[in-house]
Amino acid sequence: MDISALRSAHPDHWSKAAAIRTLTLDAIRAANSGHSGMPMGMADVATVLYEKHLKFDAKAPNWPDRDRFILSAGHGSMLLYSLLHLTGYDDMTMEEIKNFRQWGARTAGHPEYGHASGIETTTGPLGQGIATAVGFAMAEEILRGQYGKKIVDHYTYVIAGDGCLMEGISQEALGLAGRHELSKLIVFWDNNNITIDGTVDLSCRIDQVQRFKSANWHVQEIDGHDPEAIDAAIVAAKKAGKPSMIACKTHIALGSAAQDTSKGHGALTDEQLIADTKAAYGWDHAPFEIPADIKSAWEAIGARGSAERAAWEERLGSISERKQAEFARIFDRDAPKRLAPTIRALKKQMSEDQPKLATRASSEKVLAAVNPVMSETVGGSADLTGSNNTKTGDLGIFDTDNRKGRYVYWGIREHGMAAAMNGMALHGGIRPYGGTFMAFTDYARPAMRLAALMQIPSVFVMTHDSIGLGEDGPTHQPVEHVAISRATPNTYVFRPADTIETAESWEIALTAKKTPSVLSLTRQGVPTVRTKHTTKNLTAQGGYVLADSEGKRQAILIATGSEVEIALAARDLLQAEGIGTRVVSMPCMELFDAQDEAYRKRVLPAGPVRVGVEAGVRDGGWDKYLLGNRGREAKAAFVGMEGFGASAPANVLYEKFGITAEAVAEKVKAML
Amino acid sequence: MDISALRSAHPDHWSKAAAIRTLTLDAIRAANSGHSGMPMGMADVATVLYEKHLKFDAKAPNWPDRDRFILSAGHGSMLLYSLLHLTGYDDMTMEEIKNFRQWGARTAGHPEYGHASGIETTTGPLGQGIATAVGFAMAEEILRGQYGKKIVDHYTYVIAGDGCLMEGISQEALGLAGRHELSKLIVFWDNNNITIDGTVDLSCRIDQVQRFKSANWHVQEIDGHDPEAIDAAIVAAKKAGKPSMIACKTHIALGSAAQDTSKGHGALTDEQLIADTKAAYGWDHAPFEIPADIKSAWEAIGARGSAERAAWEERLGSISERKQAEFARIFDRDAPKRLAPTIRALKKQMSEDQPKLATRASSEKVLAAVNPVMSETVGGSADLTGSNNTKTGDLGIFDTDNRKGRYVYWGIREHGMAAAMNGMALHGGIRPYGGTFMAFTDYARPAMRLAALMQIPSVFVMTHDSIGLGEDGPTHQPVEHVAISRATPNTYVFRPADTIETAESWEIALTAKKTPSVLSLTRQGVPTVRTKHTTKNLTAQGGYVLADSEGKRQAILIATGSEVEIALAARDLLQAEGIGTRVVSMPCMELFDAQDEAYRKRVLPAGPVRVGVEAGVRDGGWDKYLLGNRGREAKAAFVGMEGFGASAPANVLYEKFGITAEAVAEKVKAML
Repeated sequence: MDISALRSAHPDHWSKAAAIRTLTLDAIRAANSGHSGMPMGMADVATVLYEKHLKFDAKAPNWPDRDRFILSAGHGSMLLYSLLHLTGYDDMTMEEIKNFRQWGARTAGHPEYGHASGIETTTGPLGQGIATAVGFAMAEEILRGQYGKKIVDHYTYVIAGDGCLMEGISQEALGLAGRHELSKLIVFWDNNNITIDGTVDLSCRIDQVQRFKSANWHVQEIDGHDPEAIDAAIVAAKKAGKPSMIACKTHIALGSAAQDTSKGHGALTDEQLIADTKAAYGWDHAPFEIPADIKSAWEAIGARGSAERAAWEERLGSISERKQAEFARIFDRDAPKRLAPTIRALKKQMSEDQPKLATRASSEKVLAAVNPVMSETVGGSADLTGSNNTKTGDLGIFDTDNRKGRYVYWGIREHGMAAAMNGMALHGGIRPYGGTFMAFTDYARPAMRLAALMQIPSVFVMTHDSIGLGEDGPTHQPVEHVAISRATPNTYVFRPADTIETAESWEIALTAKKTPSVLSLTRQGVPTVRTKHTTKNLTAQGGYVLADSEGKRQAILIATGSEVEIALAARDLLQAEGIGTRVVSMPCMELFDAQDEAYRKRVLPAGPVRVGVEAGVRDGGWDKYLLGNRGREAKAAFVGMEGFGASAPANVLYEKFGITAEAVAEKVKAML
Repeated sequence: MDISALRSAHPDHWSKAAAIRTLTLDAIRAANSGHSGMPMGMADVATVLYEKHLKFDAKAPNWPDRDRFILSAGHGSMLLYSLLHLTGYDDMTMEEIKNFRQWGARTAGHPEYGHASGIETTTGPLGQGIATAVGFAMAEEILRGQYGKKIVDHYTYVIAGDGCLMEGISQEALGLAGRHELSKLIVFWDNNNITIDGTVDLSCRIDQVQRFKSANWHVQEIDGHDPEAIDAAIVAAKKAGKPSMIACKTHIALGSAAQDTSKGHGALTDEQLIADTKAAYGWDHAPFEIPADIKSAWEAIGARGSAERAAWEERLGSISERKQAEFARIFDRDAPKRLAPTIRALKKQMSEDQPKLATRASSEKVLAAVNPVMSETVGGSADLTGSNNTKTGDLGIFDTDNRKGRYVYWGIREHGMAAAMNGMALHGGIRPYGGTFMAFTDYARPAMRLAALMQIPSVFVMTHDSIGLGEDGPTHQPVEHVAISRATPNTYVFRPADTIETAESWEIALTAKKTPSVLSLTRQGVPTVRTKHTTKNLTAQGGYVLADSEGKRQAILIATGSEVEIALAARDLLQAEGIGTRVVSMPCMELFDAQDEAYRKRVLPAGPVRVGVEAGVRDGGWDKYLLGNRGREAKAAFVGMEGFGASAPANVLYEKFGITAEAVAEKVKAML
């Protein structure tokens, strides 16, 4: 690569891009770890994007109508950190750059949402960024539909590498973006032909241009080091009327001895290599030193959007006060005032009607009540709309001719759905929920984990949550998935027992600001167990006494979801024999564990024998209740699943796997 | 659709295909559940495939050189069951068809591997079949490379639906097959334009023909109801020299009132609809009745391959006895005799050398010893070869010009890798292992779960298994993934402490016949803790006393993997204060739980206080050891992770998160 030609052709551009490249080299050398090659390869694209196109104001990083920039190839985090520092984001100081990858720094190894302004999403697990970006672009379309172009009108830009495009999730993202003609989504492919194991060719010979075209994308191919070509491509992409992919031919670790090699992908820390590279760049400044003229040129870029932002603020001020308040509310993730009374009214009605309903159907009832009072909910399903009960009448279908539509047919794309939901939540102004079968949590998991890590309140509506699914068999029957969700930090896992608990779970999920929720819902009908109305949300306590013992308390049955009915029936059997039995409903272990000790001991006093009942594996956090905090020898048992399920009608499966009231009662009696 | 034209054009073909269609209708009506539309739509393709092309012998279903047929669209299971019954597989009786989806039947809702002969793999979770099929085709190539065309020379056929092609995993499969020019892989796409939510168009407008071409596939488009076109397309596909996709335009639920609708995708149980459909088919037989002439025509198809099989047996008999024995051994999943002494010798050497090594590096040492004595191992990594330490010198790289190569550069495709590994194991003759980071278990999980459900011994080499990964930060640091793997039934989760335990873990993984293994391995160096050589495989006991207490036993520390070193250091601190402390190494909880109670009580006597130490969440099965089987008040604590990790050097993270010998010792002292 003839660096000197690049330098001389566009000297002003070059020096700005060189600042990114040298900050990258310096920070990675200081950390002695990181990924040098990608920022060095993509600095030209990023410089042109920030200088000429990206709508942002470094001093107002949360401006809702800013363009979003998503670094899907998150290992190249120094690219983003350099841009944020150079353009003048207040919290991205040079100290932070110098502390790259150190404890407490904003500059984590991969960009972590919440660590610094301008990090729109956490990336690193490959492919997540591009799929999350689809959600950003959909959120923009929906809000533009609701608030008009004057208030919402911005682009979502993505840099993705070969890794992102090889991951399966990228195909789900491509399909969604192409289907919905997300014309404000522009992806730069860092086409550097290098992966960790060697050249891309070792494992992949896909014609990406043809592939993107097959998914209804506009595609251009350019030299990723030519600023004029980059600019022209972005201009053309904006006019494409479709999602646009710009294939940028680049040199990884440009200008270094490791250029165009796998070695260049990783941490370049060799002093001589760094010195030689800087010499090739014509950069003779001390480490971490950015000459004032270059810094001020970058800061001018960072300030470029301030007038536009001021004009936007004025436009926002010109819409109705009601709309302004709503806009502020949804971006603050505040629930509307009408949510609580809506839930209460539904609970009251249900405690009177006492329907026997699958909790997935209960969930639909809740959504039917809630969606009309929350303009920010956007629902959907991965091609199981009728099974997940996620669609309510008022939402409208999101489509090319109905951008206001609040229901998304995600197709058979659980992973892409979950990532795009995260993108909607991160964009702001939207509370996404989406459904599939609980067993297919497996497909969506990488994105569900990111929701928990990023502290965003995506709601995963996971129906058919046990062997109660029946005939579809063990591939479709979760046994470990509730446990998996519970093992994940910062995740509410709700397994409601009836319509009332379902409504309470939804209320918590829809008011949560920093925690995603998994709603684990039944396929099969369950009776109303909360027959006495309380305005208080008992599910918010995680677990509570649903039916207390009569006479001397000898046993406590702890159950969740569809097994609460079984526990209550077991209590009847035991009480009939004079064995005082309490039933504790435990719809959300995370919330129960967050209660004070006095409450937890009141619900679960140490003495009585305990039986846990859940049609899943015991590993799902049960032993802490069955064995923990006991003042004497712990007598406890568990009625649930020990292995995979089977294909048969649901009632047969419950019998065959021994999850019955009789089995629970027997366990109690054996221990007394 | 003009059914009468189809009938009259090819009456013999029609009646055979109608047998599939009517068995489907009858079985689903009896079960009152199932998926009628797909078998009715694809019966013509399946009939031509079985009649004219598929190399098989219904009376010798395990013939190693048979063609494989994989129903990726597993919900259409009645297609497969019908074929197996009609062609005369002994275990697929009419009784089984009548018991479709009932307890104990071979005819589960989705095809379950092991339930009946001719079910090559479990399908149902969409996209798994096509990705697993890639592994089948790779196994065929590798074994053909090793044994020659006389012994191994067969095709892998797949039927995939729109759901399979929308799932991201399909893209990983396409990329792998195209890259490796798997010319004996032929995929029929059931292009019926219908998903559960409606027409495909609702969620997807991808040009699949162009998409497959972009991945280097040969593509044809045909009328999926025209037997001559189907036959000609298969003939052409076989000559393509590339993987081949045949887009079959079909009508879902052909000939019924629900044809070409979402309703037709599901269970057609309406009596009148069934009667009308059968009338349109010209089928006037009783439910489950197959006229003798049609049955015998099908049985002739089932017997068609018997002469070819006999000739193959003869050819097998003509190769060297050594090769014959090896061929039989690898298909029986028997370990070679040399494995045990190889492991023993390595253990002895390591107990003398006492290296300080990351267990991922220990794993490489084991593989370097084992791969030369096991021709059936095929290794690989999802673009982390140098990090996962999965490649050893003798393997050779699998490529278009080296089909014998036993190392696969899987690319950035964890999910596709895991599914293809399963395919290799299912094909037989191969023991696959493949690596990625432990955190990316998330990406591979749907296929890992299937390995457990199918009872096949795939080995997942998951390195960088804790915060010990360091600077890459929380996206790359597993905290719940060991717990997730342990919560999954029928999965060995090994977290070895040193080279010796790593060798022992590999020995178990490589001799397992029905259980997949997850090897959870460190990035960071750990000392040799098993300094006294034992020929016995102590890891096979799951947990064992590594260092016993001196003096009165007051505490037991239970640890795994990299935290065993910490437990030993804590023991030193405690013993120095006169507190008798036992250290139990627990490399595999599943194997420990399988020991008899006497052994478990010997290792974990009830009295002493207990502390578990693992750099992961407590939910990972810990409470059963910390709180369970205790004769008095359980005093126990856990030192591990309560939330996500962070980006910093590994040693800093261990300090900051409090996973240290000092913290462990303090916990013990606080309880005494």
